[in-house]
Amino acid sequence: MNKEQQLIDVWMKEQGWSYWKPHEILARLMEETGEFARLVNHEYGPKKKKEGESVQDFEDEIGDILYTLACFANSHGISLDAALERSIQKVAGRDKGRF
Amino acid sequence: MNKEQQLIDVWMKEQGWSYWKPHEILARLMEETGEFARLVNHEYGPKKKKEGESVQDFEDEIGDILYTLACFANSHGISLDAALERSIQKVAGRDKGRF
Amino acid sequence: MNKEQQLIDVWMKEQGWSYWKPHEILARLMEETGEFARLVNHEYGPKKKKEGESVQDFEDEIGDILYTLACFANSHGISLDAALERSIQKVAGRDKGRF
Amino acid sequence: MNKEQQLIDVWMKEQGWSYWKPHEILARLMEETGEFARLVNHEYGPKKKKEGESVQDFEDEIGDILYTLACFANSHGISLDAALERSIQKVAGRDKGRF
Repeated sequence: MNKEQQLIDVWMKEQGWSYWKPHEILARLMEETGEFARLVNHEYGPKKKKEGESVQDFEDEIGDILYTLACFANSHGISLDAALERSIQKVAGRDKGRF
Repeated sequence: MNKEQQLIDVWMKEQGWSYWKPHEILARLMEETGEFARLVNHEYGPKKKKEGESVQDFEDEIGDILYTLACFANSHGISLDAALERSIQKVAGRDKGRF
Repeated sequence: MNKEQQLIDVWMKEQGWSYWKPHEILARLMEETGEFARLVNHEYGPKKKKEGESVQDFEDEIGDILYTLACFANSHGISLDAALERSIQKVAGRDKGRF
Repeated sequence: MNKEQQLIDVWMKEQGWSYWKPHEILARLMEETGEFARLVNHEYGPKKKKEGESVQDFEDEIGDILYTLACFANSHGISLDAALERSIQKVAGRDKGRF
């Protein structure tokens, strides 16, 4: 996702914008995960309302969460790819001692 | 992140595991974002406890959130990269009509 | 809040409804806290959009979170009042050894 | 819960403390709901680890969420009881036009 993170960074600079403060990005993350949660209940829970299109809807919600994380990561010099790789190593190492 | 998503998928199959149900992955996402929130308060809020190392800690927490999202995405045939790209398009389109 | 918890319980029974499953109530809690988070960013963050009325808006969002918690509590035989009292004791005990 | 809210307020004043800022309380709320989510997965999900005691554990987690909400409510002049009552009215009114 390095390419996408750079796109966001270039674009923010072109707009003359700076990233939100950590607590503000966190609140946005909470809002976006809340929308994802609502969709999970719509698709798999007691509030079933949707037919079809659900994969597209989930892609949208996951994308918004990733965008929010990318803003936090960019303002802290963190690579999403590297972060995910480390978590995979951690999980795999915990269970099998390899990877 | 396609490469990382495939790594997870191969590894799950080798273990003979299947992905958790949507609501279970969602609960895990909530747990992981909660740990991220605690770290934000430790670093930037009233419970300051940390010195140094913070970027590494944030990378860990962001990685765990991404791992959780990757499991959901894998079980729904969604690409994290594509999801992020669409959100960037959406944000950029909303503000500038380009990208 | 015992009175309010009982109101909910009586009303659910009159409707012939049963409480959602734990993971479903949890997803709803996540959705409601997400709406609360959005309001915090609207009032105190970078997305300021509101004038006046904010206390009423916060009361609404907090009420929805409490309602969700009350459903979980009712389906587990938990009193919200007793739960809050125990947390107060815990916090107070941790800091002063009294209460 | 008016009694409990007042207890917190009196105690905060005795300590000479002031309530956290809205975004800080929000981050704490996210942390506490995350712990609640972990417990739901432990009890009802793929990570079953607990035997017995679960009602007590849930009371603890719900109490911590309520305490966090009470701090936000106290710093905004909001009554938790009144907030919950309004949400009940809203839900009941939506479905039956009474209460």
